[in-house]
Amino acid sequence: MEQELKQINFAFIGFGKVARAFARLSINRRKWLIKKYGVEWKITGIATKNHGISIDPQGLPIGKMLRSWKAHSNLNSFHNGPACDSHADFIRQCGADVLFEMSVLDLSGDPAASYIREALRAGLNVITTNKGPVATHFRSLSRLARQRDVQFLYEGTVMDGAPVFNLARHNLPATHIRSLRGILNSTTNYILTQMEQGTSFEAALEYTKNKGITEADPSLDLEGWDSATKLSVLIQALMGGNVKPNDIERHSISEDIGRKVRAAVRRDRRLRRVTRAYRQGGRVIGKVELQELEIFDPLAAIRGLSNILILNTDTMRELAIIENNPSVEQTAYALFSDLVSLL
Amino acid sequence: MEQELKQINFAFIGFGKVARAFARLSINRRKWLIKKYGVEWKITGIATKNHGISIDPQGLPIGKMLRSWKAHSNLNSFHNGPACDSHADFIRQCGADVLFEMSVLDLSGDPAASYIREALRAGLNVITTNKGPVATHFRSLSRLARQRDVQFLYEGTVMDGAPVFNLARHNLPATHIRSLRGILNSTTNYILTQMEQGTSFEAALEYTKNKGITEADPSLDLEGWDSATKLSVLIQALMGGNVKPNDIERHSISEDIGRKVRAAVRRDRRLRRVTRAYRQGGRVIGKVELQELEIFDPLAAIRGLSNILILNTDTMRELAIIENNPSVEQTAYALFSDLVSLL
Repeated sequence: MEQELKQINFAFIGFGKVARAFARLSINRRKWLIKKYGVEWKITGIATKNHGISIDPQGLPIGKMLRSWKAHSNLNSFHNGPACDSHADFIRQCGADVLFEMSVLDLSGDPAASYIREALRAGLNVITTNKGPVATHFRSLSRLARQRDVQFLYEGTVMDGAPVFNLARHNLPATHIRSLRGILNSTTNYILTQMEQGTSFEAALEYTKNKGITEADPSLDLEGWDSATKLSVLIQALMGGNVKPNDIERHSISEDIGRKVRAAVRRDRRLRRVTRAYRQGGRVIGKVELQELEIFDPLAAIRGLSNILILNTDTMRELAIIENNPSVEQTAYALFSDLVSLL
Repeated sequence: MEQELKQINFAFIGFGKVARAFARLSINRRKWLIKKYGVEWKITGIATKNHGISIDPQGLPIGKMLRSWKAHSNLNSFHNGPACDSHADFIRQCGADVLFEMSVLDLSGDPAASYIREALRAGLNVITTNKGPVATHFRSLSRLARQRDVQFLYEGTVMDGAPVFNLARHNLPATHIRSLRGILNSTTNYILTQMEQGTSFEAALEYTKNKGITEADPSLDLEGWDSATKLSVLIQALMGGNVKPNDIERHSISEDIGRKVRAAVRRDRRLRRVTRAYRQGGRVIGKVELQELEIFDPLAAIRGLSNILILNTDTMRELAIIENNPSVEQTAYALFSDLVSLL
């Protein structure tokens, strides 16, 4: 019954809701990881923007850190390693095999991209839920990972833990993706579908803000930047196109959308913000646009916070994935499934 | 640029539409398999019920066989190997590494199960699209494959090449499936959704027969045996339950369904035949039942020949897969994706 366990060290950048949910999930699945992969993990470092930094080569007491976590907590009290002044310093000193990059989103991609680059250079595998850096620096980061012979994984950038990139990688061999379309932003879909039932724009937006679903700056959702950034990742990773968020045409949603929503319902149709990409003359075109859909379009059936992605392929024709009412646990699961891919 | 190619030998049982589509797909992806896996394949044997048997250790001329194929073709003229009298004889003599079992469906599971058993015993990997034997003999065949250290794969038994078993295997690590529901029979879904638009039961059924979608005996579709057999495979493979097709409660569909279909539409709802499984007191219960669904249920949006499966899990909540308007190419792709899993 004895077996040689492989030790694997994690480091976190960011210790927000997703990071803590991932830590809890990893604790819950500790035995599963030992049984299935012979892998035992510990966290040797956590770096945050506002809650300090801690490193411990012996492993941080993550259970205790989670239990005692408060809005004003500071991680420095757990520090038991080399001094470090910056995140770059942290990455070089944290002694991790895998860096989980979960810093607060900036759609420009920075500073997350510089953390990821630093980690890949130092020979760490990187798993991120941060779509900004992946969209903006997809090619350079992917190339760097190949050069250093480490993994760079980003399942959580689109539809949380629902398999999108891992599906294409593992389950659609020898498949060419011709086009794709979907609903990828929970906030705007919630607003549009609640307005169908009479809720006001403000009340629906307020709900998503309170639920912590909306980006810190709601205009990123409403103006389509969130969808465009996700679409850019999809196009680069799945369709080989070189399309950045800025290259993607976007339709905004604002208070005056109510009239269009109701007009669509009267025609027995539904207004949805459709995120799509298609090939045209050797290029890939990306769009985030308002469309009135017939009631039987699978996108019309997607309500509330749910997301859908439909891939149009040469082998399987149309294949769709739906994620129903995700929460932070589903984002955490993206990190976990990337971890398993890596193992 | 030189590389050592690995030779892999295929044998087919059955040379119907699916088998021929799979052969064409494998020819189209020959270079891809070499490039990606360093694997070169040939077909060393094909056995059929009504078109003879042929074996050639050097590889059968599959391109020629496909081009010259006619309803009355006989494969014996291509035979260039040891004499064999029976399918069992064929399996032992065909010299294959992988047997593709695609014989005509018999929901009882025989004789396909005996071919699969024979092949596994002889140390061949087996890939099948035949739900009958998988449902009826799931445990014994899976055990036999483990004992002989070969693979027994069956992606094509449910939703053709849409990743169901491969998704659960590769993309949902450490996940417990609590329940599942879906629409898994194209014929009855086509009938129900065409009737919503005024087509008659007979005309809709006739269309699916002409398209070759309906089972040779349409009552297998209408009485829910096809769905129940697929559900039995899902329950055994994904939920660990020991539920055979006979244990599953079924609702039939017949001509008099029109009234219910129209009544549902008048209430702004939709009638669907829902295939579902759930846990109750340590057991798994399977049902194939008519349900009136609200218009926004994802199952209500599934029209025509399309299929959907929604998994309710502990890690990802609800995750759905939709296969849109499948044809024989999508079933062939199931065999191909299983082949890649095996490689």
